[in-house]
Amino acid sequence: MRIKMIWLLTGLLVGAAGCSEQATENQNTESAEPAANMVEAVYRDEPIKPIQPANVENPKYVELGKKLYFDPRLSKSGFISCNSCHNLSMGGTDNLKTSIGHNWTKGPINSPTVLNSSLNLAQFWDGRAADLKEQAAGPIANPGEMAFTHALAVDMLRSIPGYVAEFKEAFGKEEITIDEVTLAIAAFEETLVTPNSRFDLWLKGDDNAMTATELAGYNLFKSSGCVACHSGEGIGGNSFQKMGLVEPYHATSPAEGRSAVTGNDADRFSFKVPTLRNVELTYPYFHDGEADTLTEAVDVMGRLQLGKKFTDEENAQIVAFLKTLTGDQPSFQLPQLPPSSDKTPRPEPFAE
Amino acid sequence: MRIKMIWLLTGLLVGAAGCSEQATENQNTESAEPAANMVEAVYRDEPIKPIQPANVENPKYVELGKKLYFDPRLSKSGFISCNSCHNLSMGGTDNLKTSIGHNWTKGPINSPTVLNSSLNLAQFWDGRAADLKEQAAGPIANPGEMAFTHALAVDMLRSIPGYVAEFKEAFGKEEITIDEVTLAIAAFEETLVTPNSRFDLWLKGDDNAMTATELAGYNLFKSSGCVACHSGEGIGGNSFQKMGLVEPYHATSPAEGRSAVTGNDADRFSFKVPTLRNVELTYPYFHDGEADTLTEAVDVMGRLQLGKKFTDEENAQIVAFLKTLTGDQPSFQLPQLPPSSDKTPRPEPFAE
Repeated sequence: MRIKMIWLLTGLLVGAAGCSEQATENQNTESAEPAANMVEAVYRDEPIKPIQPANVENPKYVELGKKLYFDPRLSKSGFISCNSCHNLSMGGTDNLKTSIGHNWTKGPINSPTVLNSSLNLAQFWDGRAADLKEQAAGPIANPGEMAFTHALAVDMLRSIPGYVAEFKEAFGKEEITIDEVTLAIAAFEETLVTPNSRFDLWLKGDDNAMTATELAGYNLFKSSGCVACHSGEGIGGNSFQKMGLVEPYHATSPAEGRSAVTGNDADRFSFKVPTLRNVELTYPYFHDGEADTLTEAVDVMGRLQLGKKFTDEENAQIVAFLKTLTGDQPSFQLPQLPPSSDKTPRPEPFAE
Repeated sequence: MRIKMIWLLTGLLVGAAGCSEQATENQNTESAEPAANMVEAVYRDEPIKPIQPANVENPKYVELGKKLYFDPRLSKSGFISCNSCHNLSMGGTDNLKTSIGHNWTKGPINSPTVLNSSLNLAQFWDGRAADLKEQAAGPIANPGEMAFTHALAVDMLRSIPGYVAEFKEAFGKEEITIDEVTLAIAAFEETLVTPNSRFDLWLKGDDNAMTATELAGYNLFKSSGCVACHSGEGIGGNSFQKMGLVEPYHATSPAEGRSAVTGNDADRFSFKVPTLRNVELTYPYFHDGEADTLTEAVDVMGRLQLGKKFTDEENAQIVAFLKTLTGDQPSFQLPQLPPSSDKTPRPEPFAE
């Protein structure tokens, strides 16, 4: 088995317990006086690091991006928005095996969660987009997803006075292009991190944040080798791995994975390791969405990736651990979208 | 022309100007000491009354109903929620001519706004549902909309521990039925009123809330006869009227209107008069959604309902008035939905 572990920010991982107050204090003073009064964040020495709160550099991008994220006018039909398949009421997913696109098209692959996606080494299951900005451009123009074009999306936005004003306010220029659109969406998505899971509280030193069963599950997660790929702040998302390492996986998805990007045959059926953050919310599992439950997913992963058959008790312990990974969900007011003007092209949900 | 005007709460309409402070004070003290200190709400003597803030009787129903409203698991596909077609980011509509339902079914009629729908004399364009609770049951089980059944919807909810606990907390009993589901959704929808439009501020005495053009439009709206049907707190929603009174309307919708409910041939093509509240946001217009703009809608209404051809200037004045009817939009945190359990039946978006 190829182990490609990335120890993110290992330098910050200092073994310590009972330090939750210090960690909290550090968060609260992060923008106050530097150096002398700063308390270094101290966490337990584990291969997983607590999620850090989002560092919002440009709130205007974020507010604009939030509207765009919820705006179905970025699709040909006027019916599908980013939030349709990456629903922020449902763990940043659609909880479907594969997504529904324009004209009820069955998508080829499971929609990954947008939560904590800024921590991924690349975007999409095959990593074909370098970052969230590049990713955001994809679904808008994909005929099986939002089925629009970048040109039509930009035309639509330019026709809406509320958007024109907001783009100008955010970017300081008159002209809207797809670059500003995807930059704003990415800026919003970067805020969608989920700190304060019970596991993170435990990492920060709160011994009461996890039960004995959950801790036993975490220890199994480490000792069995799950953590080899599911590590770092995202507990995944930082490497590509072959799906079906010890035994082959018979996917229902046609996706070939990383080889579609690298052209390298050795990368066939290699996919980005998904984050396990909020995994209780992001069912069904795997790139084809064929595992309905965590119990099934843990069983399949154990056998196919690790050559290990977990007992029912072991499986239940690992599942209990995984359920401690649900963090603070996105919390904001439902955005209000600026209305179309008389000049705004109307959606065409039923046009050929 | 048949004039069927309902003067809602005429007794409260006392001619007065410059009384905005009193009106505000009344709102702020409505739950304080009764009688002696109460200032009677005093508004200008007009056929339209300001929207009152929602009177929330049971916040637990509302919070539960909000989740249900946003939950696509109430549809067969797991993809369509109440908010899909009555989008609270978009004036409580989908801004489509007619809606998209299960399997991309083209709906037969335009989705009316959910905003202020509690003020309607009945629900749906043909008034076939007496109230919001009865209405909420319709789309869930409509094969061309959410395509589910009440039994399956209830099974789904019963399988989700988070919902079970919340229903018990709200209704004080173990068993969930479709009655509690629709009651909670209706309770949430009753909160979706939109007070404080500029026109309402003017009604309450603020002379600066409207421009001269907008006031000229309002005067035309009254003198031309629009107000005969678009009156009351909802500025519509309180009567059924024939579409195409002076000249016939050639609808693209197959809907026959009120006659489908009454069985009375005289009611053919009679529809509930839509509210004009937030009309700038609720395009396109008419039961078939064929009028894309307010300019077009005002022109058609003038000719077909009133036998009057508005000049461009008159039309523009009325449109300017209509744009003062946008009130405070729903303002709440995006709800977080309780996750499915292992026992929850999975959606079947592509099943026959």
